Amino acid sequence: MALWVRFAHGDRQGFGTLEDESIAVHAGNMFEGAAPTGESLPLADARLLAPVRPGAFIGLWNNFHEAAQKQGNAIPEGPLWFLKNSRSVIGPGEAIRPPAGYTGKVLYEGELGLVIGRTVSNADEAEAAAAIFGLTCVNDVTALDLLFADASFPQWARAKGCDSFGPVGPAIATGLDWSALRVKVALNGRVRQDYPLNDMILPPARIVSLISQEMTLQPGDVIACGTSVGALPMRPGMTVEVTIEGIGTLSNPYAP
Amino acid sequence: MALWVRFAHGDRQGFGTLEDESIAVHAGNMFEGAAPTGESLPLADARLLAPVRPGAFIGLWNNFHEAAQKQGNAIPEGPLWFLKNSRSVIGPGEAIRPPAGYTGKVLYEGELGLVIGRTVSNADEAEAAAAIFGLTCVNDVTALDLLFADASFPQWARAKGCDSFGPVGPAIATGLDWSALRVKVALNGRVRQDYPLNDMILPPARIVSLISQEMTLQPGDVIACGTSVGALPMRPGMTVEVTIEGIGTLSNPYAP
Repeated sequence: MALWVRFAHGDRQGFGTLEDESIAVHAGNMFEGAAPTGESLPLADARLLAPVRPGAFIGLWNNFHEAAQKQGNAIPEGPLWFLKNSRSVIGPGEAIRPPAGYTGKVLYEGELGLVIGRTVSNADEAEAAAAIFGLTCVNDVTALDLLFADASFPQWARAKGCDSFGPVGPAIATGLDWSALRVKVALNGRVRQDYPLNDMILPPARIVSLISQEMTLQPGDVIACGTSVGALPMRPGMTVEVTIEGIGTLSNPYAP
Repeated sequence: MALWVRFAHGDRQGFGTLEDESIAVHAGNMFEGAAPTGESLPLADARLLAPVRPGAFIGLWNNFHEAAQKQGNAIPEGPLWFLKNSRSVIGPGEAIRPPAGYTGKVLYEGELGLVIGRTVSNADEAEAAAAIFGLTCVNDVTALDLLFADASFPQWARAKGCDSFGPVGPAIATGLDWSALRVKVALNGRVRQDYPLNDMILPPARIVSLISQEMTLQPGDVIACGTSVGALPMRPGMTVEVTIEGIGTLSNPYAP
């Protein structure tokens, strides 16, 4: 069990593991063969970055029983997913900003994020489970008024791909059992989402296995497992906090 | 006017410009400040790669008047787009392969590809036009039976994102006027698509400008401008050739 972070410290960037109030700086590849350098950096001196820069950023729709029931959606047989702009990723504390001129609703969605640790293609569920490096928090932000702005074509990639619409972090937890955890989202401290991950329709290893049948996944890819009930629009100036016990709290202001 | 290519030659990879039957090898950054090394490599000794490895690979839907009319689609006001798995890109001659176990229809779609040459955000049409480094051919391959396999959620990213479903190339043409060109697709030598680019609903600069309002584009990003009439399923063993005059012919076998 470790908590991996990426950080900025003055002009340099690096990565390491969280140890109480410090970062044990590492060198090498976070996903394979990382080794401590011996340097311990006080957490207060560093700024945490998104713990990963994904090459592919996948998001699931309709993956929780409670939300499916509430919204009248059928239980899917496989993962129903979209691609998020992988460069929409921002780190802890960075501002979520809607596009200039957009004045519609912007929703938060607190989600469990799977971080892939090895190249995986055509994997069975055991291989898929082994390919999951760790777990993180994702806020799958959506410009709701763009999603269905055209009646003939739902614009998932556009509505969810705006710059800054992919907060990820604060850390990647390894060796953590997802099944006992809950995802909580607080807006200005008021809890708005609080749902158990064991309500997931398709669990992590099955998601990774099924996607890998068609699309090779690579180290650093992130899969957001979908959200449950309670996703709501944010108001300007609010702070959104996504918390998963064992991972931490991903906090971002909404600053149009 | 130049034709930029990437190549493999023995163990090394490189890039340069096509000059008759040779490649003028270049060093530096293709998009900014590339300079010839003086080496001329016989084209016959090299294998052409996809001319670009995009960070973001965007595809448009419903962007040609003739196809919109035939399919009964309304004329959109802005680009209706999806994200293609950017690692689905393959180069000239590489095989298009459907996922293991998939036995449904696989469609080719010949398209004009825009290759972005500079970081562009919130651009007006003049800035957007200047950000287009050059033009290439794209085959926007689709596993049709996956696209609408779930009645509640059209799976654009999945159906178009399978490994090998993004042939791009053979070159990137700079200084080429798109408006007089046609896109032709031949299956085993028989022409199946042949449509004029001036039938586009949203032209290149407008597409780039509008997308950049919401999502910053980066050098190497590819935008496939959508296809017109004549996209059809491929049969095993067929060779698909996408030709745009001034760019060349992108040829790929379909090999389930």
